[in-house]
Parts: sequence; structure tokens; C-alpha cells
Amino acid sequence: MWWEGGAVGYIDQRLLPHRFESATASTVTQVAEAITGMAVRGAPTIGVMAAYGIALATTTGESLSDAYDTLLSTRPTAVNLKVGLDTVMAAGPDVGDKPDAAAILGAARMHDNSEVTAARDIGRHGAKLLAHGSRVLTHCNAGWMAAQDWGTATSPIYTGAREGMNPFVWVSETRPRLQGARITAWEMVNEGIDHRLIADSAGAQLMRQRKVDIVITGADRIAANGDTANKIGTYSHALAARANGIPFYIATPLTTFDTDTPDGESIPIEERDEDEMVFVEGLTDTGEIQRVRVAPLETKVVNPAFDVTPATLITGFITEVGVIPATPDAIADVFRHPIRW
Amino acid sequence: MWWEGGAVGYIDQRLLPHRFESATASTVTQVAEAITGMAVRGAPTIGVMAAYGIALATTTGESLSDAYDTLLSTRPTAVNLKVGLDTVMAAGPDVGDKPDAAAILGAARMHDNSEVTAARDIGRHGAKLLAHGSRVLTHCNAGWMAAQDWGTATSPIYTGAREGMNPFVWVSETRPRLQGARITAWEMVNEGIDHRLIADSAGAQLMRQRKVDIVITGADRIAANGDTANKIGTYSHALAARANGIPFYIATPLTTFDTDTPDGESIPIEERDEDEMVFVEGLTDTGEIQRVRVAPLETKVVNPAFDVTPATLITGFITEVGVIPATPDAIADVFRHPIRW
Repeated sequence: MWWEGGAVGYIDQRLLPHRFESATASTVTQVAEAITGMAVRGAPTIGVMAAYGIALATTTGESLSDAYDTLLSTRPTAVNLKVGLDTVMAAGPDVGDKPDAAAILGAARMHDNSEVTAARDIGRHGAKLLAHGSRVLTHCNAGWMAAQDWGTATSPIYTGAREGMNPFVWVSETRPRLQGARITAWEMVNEGIDHRLIADSAGAQLMRQRKVDIVITGADRIAANGDTANKIGTYSHALAARANGIPFYIATPLTTFDTDTPDGESIPIEERDEDEMVFVEGLTDTGEIQRVRVAPLETKVVNPAFDVTPATLITGFITEVGVIPATPDAIADVFRHPIRW
Repeated sequence: MWWEGGAVGYIDQRLLPHRFESATASTVTQVAEAITGMAVRGAPTIGVMAAYGIALATTTGESLSDAYDTLLSTRPTAVNLKVGLDTVMAAGPDVGDKPDAAAILGAARMHDNSEVTAARDIGRHGAKLLAHGSRVLTHCNAGWMAAQDWGTATSPIYTGAREGMNPFVWVSETRPRLQGARITAWEMVNEGIDHRLIADSAGAQLMRQRKVDIVITGADRIAANGDTANKIGTYSHALAARANGIPFYIATPLTTFDTDTPDGESIPIEERDEDEMVFVEGLTDTGEIQRVRVAPLETKVVNPAFDVTPATLITGFITEVGVIPATPDAIADVFRHPIRW
């Protein structure tokens, strides 16, 4: 997303791959709705969006602390949201009895740029884990739309492609919202990267058949012990990778680590509306975006948006400072001495 | 399905849960198309359907061996198809230079009844594995529609419910064709069994949270060593069950064992059309059944219909003769001495 004429512009990801449309949020409520409704999604991206949301509050005269609370409550699992908000709230000090609008917008822009740089550097470190023609399995969308310019899980792939490594990508469709089928596949088409779409549950079978060389996903929150919350289905891929001796990496900026959360059990898991499961939205043969119901009216749904992959299943974290082992000591060390990495 | 007036009647499962409609196949080609197009599906059911298909050939005057070849080639993975066909082809002998139509129809009916009885007995044995209020996770549809009257994986659930055990069912939606969301959920509604629909990839998370007591699925082919082909996604559930210490059972009639196939690597895995992944069919808000596209036009798909769960992950096979350990010796023993079990 971007700051433009005192408002926040964004791409409405709900319409992809069928339509590429941008929209504008002019109030904090509109920013919050874009995040809650998942028009804007992806852990780093919603952190940046929330930061711009605070900048917006300075122009509309809304209370910054109300804006902070509203934006923080939009999605409970991804910690990047809080990092983005805290970063801009620390800007200032107030000018008279008003927040320093210029300082806050500057902080939001710096946070935005910093996440872009982190995503690029994730690619630089992650590409070293690929060989020529590596077959990468990824889940959900941790690409352009989730982290601007490079993505997180996709950044090693895009970097590898630019270096002539010719990577191949298995795109796990990612029920229920199909971020893989809709967004990652669309990104792969646009980047010209050879890929195949698969059902989420086909990943394990492909790993058993030795058709996957490496699994890379993003993350929404990483606890101090390395347990990682990410899109529902990540844990299944991690189990299959472990059972078949395939390396499983999480690609993520340091903003996704939450060293205040001791372990995966302590990460709040967002439960989303059952309509996400019961209805599937797509393009009709006549070119309209429409939803269809796939389950009986009487059937109820449990729809956890995320799962927790235990640190023991994670080969490492690909971050902007390098590849970090998934151990409490290594994580603590990075946050003590980020420069050494 | 059923034999009626010299034709094969069946329920068109593609329309469930939105419409409950029966249809009629009057030629072998129509029977084959119903199986290939998955209007009729489920390992035991397609075996019975194919048996009636041969009976149909005796009335239409089609060559029985051509009918056999046509029907056998409809679906490569489920061995029940071959068992059903071989059972009726063994009926006879020919009357003059013609097959004995009455004997063949009789054999088809016996095979049908035998599968119904097996499904009932699977329930009798399987219900002993449930406790009061057991939370059962099942995948795909191994219910009424897959095996008449009782189903296979559902039979212990239905038997347990009749015995007042009040089972609860996690219904894994089963991408890409959504047999769980469309058919199993519909069966649960009709049986009055408390259930929740989940994304396939949510099963592992629920197991990690100790919200699943037992996993029961059907099977399409079981090799001599116990490796089991079943709907894509079964292997993922088995891995998650093992990682979390949850028993994982396959409920299946003996007709699903193929002792001529040594192991899972030797089971042919059907690859189905990419449209199954790219389009999702359902009911529009105005009550029409329509398909919507969910992926970019340029994106290609890999769509294996089945996966193989290694015997080492299977707690046991719930069959009509009892619960069999997933070992080559136990399987061989059952086929040497079925009566002892």
C-alpha cells in the first residue's frame, strides 16, 4: 500500500486474480475494515497498513490511542500489526497538544521501507538454500501482496530466478480463502515462474514422491522458543516435510518474532467466519465475481485461520540478517546482537 | 444404486447436497460415464455399479469382455471395481453361445448384498473403538454414498449413534471435489449427528489441540503389506495422528484388499483433470448450481486423486471380520483363514 494525498491506497486482494483494482482508505475505520475483511492481508503488509492508519488519524483529527486500539484489534495473530503501530506511536514528541503528524508519517514510511528492505534481504539469504531447478513448495501467499516488492517466502524464489536458478514452485491452494490459488499463482504468472497449483493435502504426497526439494512459508508470529503461527495448513506441510526428510524453512522479517510470547500455546489463534468455508468466490463463465455455496445449510463450521508449527519441525528462519536456527538460544541471540548475524 | 427394469438406477452424487436426484444408466457406456464423471463414486459403490454394468451388457447384447474392459478402465486406483467385475464374470456358465443373464444379474445382486452386509459388520466392529462422545475425524465420503446403507468409515459412527454413544464428527471438506463438505456433511445432517466442517489442513491443528479422539477413513486399495491408497489428504491426516498419538483406522470391506499388489508404490494413482481444482461448483444465491473459477487462466495444476498412507501409520483395518493389524502377516492370515477373524 502507499500514502497518497492524505489517504492510504491499497490493492484489493479479494479481487485477485480476476481483477487488479486499487482502493483508498480515508479514515481509520476504512483502514481497519480493509484489514479485517482481508482486502489487505499478509503479516508484514498489515503492519505497514496499520502504521499508515495512524498517520491517517493525524490528518482526520481522530484520537491516536483510539486508532491504535481499533487497528490492533483487527487481526489477533500477526504480531507485525503491533510492531507497525508501536513504531509510529513512538514517533514525536507531540507538537503542543497535538501529535507530530509529519514525524508519524515519516515513521510509517520508514517502517514501510524497512520491511521492503528486509524482504529483499530475505531473498538474498534464502536464495543460497536453493539449487538450480529447486522445487519449492509454498503455502498461502507470502509474496508481493503480503510483503511489498519481494514478499517473504517468495523472495528467495524471485532472487533465485533473477540469478538464473530456474526455480519451480508448488503452489498450495490454501483453503479456505485460497490465497495460494488466487494470489501466489497470480504472482508466479506475473514473475514468469514455472509453477503448479495443488490441493493443500497433495503436498504430503508430493513430498513422499520426492517431488519437493524445500518448503518455504511465511509466518504471522514466532514465539521466543521458535514455535511459529502461520496460515492454517502450514503445520501439515511441516509434518510431511519432516516425515520425508525435506528441509522446512520459515521466511520472515525480524518484525514477526514476538519474544514476549514464550511458546506456540500462548499465541492467540484467530477463528474466522464460517462463510469463508461454506462459500467459495470466483469468476463465473460470464465474467462476474460470484460466490457459490458448497456445504449443506444445516452444517456448522470450525475455521481457525492459523495453526502452530512447533520449532522442532522448523529447519530455520530465513530473515534479513541471515538464516537463524529454530532454537530459543539462537532467537535470543539475534535480538541481543542483530548486527552480528 | 439399484437394478430396475433392465437398467441401473443411481443417485447423482455430483448434485449433493443441493439436489437429491436419481438417474438411470441403460448402456455400459452410460454406466462407465457415471463412474468416470463421479456421479457415482466410493470404492465399494463403484464395484457394485460395475457389476450391474455387466448385467446390463447381457440385456443390451454388448460384448461382456468389451464391457469388462470399458468398466475396468474407468478408475484405476480402487480395486473394488475389479473385484465387482470379476465376481460377475465368474457367474455362468454360458447358456448355449450366450452368457447366462440371470446368473450374472444374480451374482451382481449377491455382490451388492454382500457389500451392504460387510458395511454393517464394519460398524459392529468399529463401534467398539468408540467411547461415549468420541470425536471422530473423517476424510472424503466413506458413507452411504460410497457403500450402500451404512458406509465404511461412517458405519462405526452410525452404529455408535444407534447405541446411544453420541459421537461427534469432524468432517474434512476434501478438496478438490469437496466430498466431505458436500456428501459427508449432508449424510451427518440426515443422520442427525453433531458435526463440524473443517478445511482439510485444519485436521492437524485440531489433533495437536487434543480435539480429535480417533481418525477413521475409507480406502480405495490396500496392498499386501498394508500400505493404503485413499483420497488425497488421507496421508496428511495419518501423519498428524501419529505425531499427536491419535489412533488412525481404515474402515473397509475385504474387497478393498489387493494381495496381488505388494506395496503402496505399486498402486496406480489416478491423476484427474485440472478443472477439478480450477473450478468450484456450488449453489448460487439464486439457487442455481454453477461453477466459478478460482485460479488464474495461465496456471496449470497437478491433481492426484489419491495418496498412499504407509502401513506403519495405520493403527488397524476395521473390516467385516474384525479389526486387523496393518501388518503383512495379519493381512495374509485373514485371507488364508477369513472365518477365524
